Amino acid sequence: MAVRIGIVGYGNLGRGVECAIKQNPDMELAAVFTRRDPASVSILTKGAKVCPIGEAKDWQGKIDVMILCGGSATDLPRQTPELARMFHVIDSFDTHAKIPEHFAQTDEAAKAGGNVAIISVGWDPGLFSLNRLYANAILPDGNDYTFWGKGVSQGHSDAIRRIKGVKDARQYTIPVDSALEAVRKGENPQLTTRQKHTRECFVVADEGADLQRIETEIKTMPNYFEDYDTTVHFISEEELQRDHAGIPHGGFVFRSGKTGWNQENSHIIEYSLKLDSNPEFTSSVLVAYARAAFRMAQEGQKGCRTVFDVAPAYLINMSGEEIRRTLL
Amino acid sequence: MAVRIGIVGYGNLGRGVECAIKQNPDMELAAVFTRRDPASVSILTKGAKVCPIGEAKDWQGKIDVMILCGGSATDLPRQTPELARMFHVIDSFDTHAKIPEHFAQTDEAAKAGGNVAIISVGWDPGLFSLNRLYANAILPDGNDYTFWGKGVSQGHSDAIRRIKGVKDARQYTIPVDSALEAVRKGENPQLTTRQKHTRECFVVADEGADLQRIETEIKTMPNYFEDYDTTVHFISEEELQRDHAGIPHGGFVFRSGKTGWNQENSHIIEYSLKLDSNPEFTSSVLVAYARAAFRMAQEGQKGCRTVFDVAPAYLINMSGEEIRRTLL
Repeated sequence: MAVRIGIVGYGNLGRGVECAIKQNPDMELAAVFTRRDPASVSILTKGAKVCPIGEAKDWQGKIDVMILCGGSATDLPRQTPELARMFHVIDSFDTHAKIPEHFAQTDEAAKAGGNVAIISVGWDPGLFSLNRLYANAILPDGNDYTFWGKGVSQGHSDAIRRIKGVKDARQYTIPVDSALEAVRKGENPQLTTRQKHTRECFVVADEGADLQRIETEIKTMPNYFEDYDTTVHFISEEELQRDHAGIPHGGFVFRSGKTGWNQENSHIIEYSLKLDSNPEFTSSVLVAYARAAFRMAQEGQKGCRTVFDVAPAYLINMSGEEIRRTLL
Repeated sequence: MAVRIGIVGYGNLGRGVECAIKQNPDMELAAVFTRRDPASVSILTKGAKVCPIGEAKDWQGKIDVMILCGGSATDLPRQTPELARMFHVIDSFDTHAKIPEHFAQTDEAAKAGGNVAIISVGWDPGLFSLNRLYANAILPDGNDYTFWGKGVSQGHSDAIRRIKGVKDARQYTIPVDSALEAVRKGENPQLTTRQKHTRECFVVADEGADLQRIETEIKTMPNYFEDYDTTVHFISEEELQRDHAGIPHGGFVFRSGKTGWNQENSHIIEYSLKLDSNPEFTSSVLVAYARAAFRMAQEGQKGCRTVFDVAPAYLINMSGEEIRRTLL
């Protein structure tokens, strides 16, 4: 019998989960829960229901794992613990600094409900975190480097849109090639924020807006842009739609480390992602961890977990014998 | 209290384990077991013993985990099950086709002894296998590519040394750059053996040997060379010692896959290693998994495992709270 999945929140991430479920024959979509009027939400999967989010509690026993597709700022801190009392849950909580607090609250709720919750699933946090951990465990004497991009940063795009006179905007985070190369060669560079990434902005301005002022406001914006070399291009709305509609992303995780009695040998571990669609890839990770949560719960586990606590074998729709024969 | 490690077999891999233990303050080397005369084996660690391999059984209760550093052809198929009856064990068994059989024999022995055994630990099998599994779980519709090198293949170097008139030899396996690039670009190429790797050989010939015959014998050798584009360089013994004394290796694991309702988006996952010393890096992986075996045994687990069955958190000398705070 297929693992029955509920999706909470039907934006880019929720729709990505729906697509990923279609690619996994051992999973099925039972229902989508939304804050909008369900009649206004049209989903792709035949046979799955669209329900108001308040009705989620009525689906206990009819849904195995809830995949939470809301935002980390306000949705997940409330929804994940709440739903972990009733269901096994997966979320992609990505506010790194608040993970310990979110973990504690979700752990308490999941234990109280007798459920498994896996939080902060995706690629960073998620696959990048796994690679940092494996590499640190293997090379305890070394340096870590994480680069993001080339890809669209929603947060930075939103920040530009809040500037007066800006109609729409898309911001790309781009790793600096020479920095990547220095790390790859084992030079162990000390890199400033500016030396690691550049930022490229495509901006649609309101008619008659002061472009020079907008550009200055972007480039000097604290936290978001002032520590970076930023390029601003003003383009038309048509160009933005035509050339910047996608949500690509990706990045690199490196660890360079030493081994040997006198640390005479160097090693480089590199992991990278090049993603056409950030939300669809993240969703694919969420669905694999939903399978793991279900299996771990079948074994009697309870409480909150992260990707660090999940044995890889739980993630894939194959038996132990099959993975040893084909993937080891 | 530190985890007490025994090393069985003191070649390049055993010496690598000894060095890796030095880098991990929660581990200590208790003893090295050898088939040679112990008096003839000089180790680096003060306070650790060198013992005949037959005395291993007397160390029960004084060693927590035995790391087996013998070869996959004849040592490990016998040693791993035998020692798994007495100790928690780690090995790097790498004969892919025989893993199911080795797993079954070791599982029976480890269960009988109440121990944890983790087999086929290293980078391939090992870290490369993990990356194949994670990537397949996340992108079920896609293609896998594994490339090895640039690095020294001991098996191919040995095969050259068996040719009449060859005094010594070093063989490098080299991935073909254009093939790597095609995979990296998401072209999903179908690659023949010849298109994936080339082989470069550095050969020291006996004085007066027929170099043309040696070169032909190498290039036409079935299984080892005939399906590859092979280059042969004859060099002096001094040059071999000076320029080819190291044992570097590495490689690449890719998965390219599609997501989206109509599989409209493409993604590339790439993992790569660039290693100055193949045995020292492999040893570092073995030591991290020795830590995991010890912790899993403390929780009451028994039987044979592979890297697929080990939750990443077990590998690192940090608490769950610490890894969530610093690596997630």
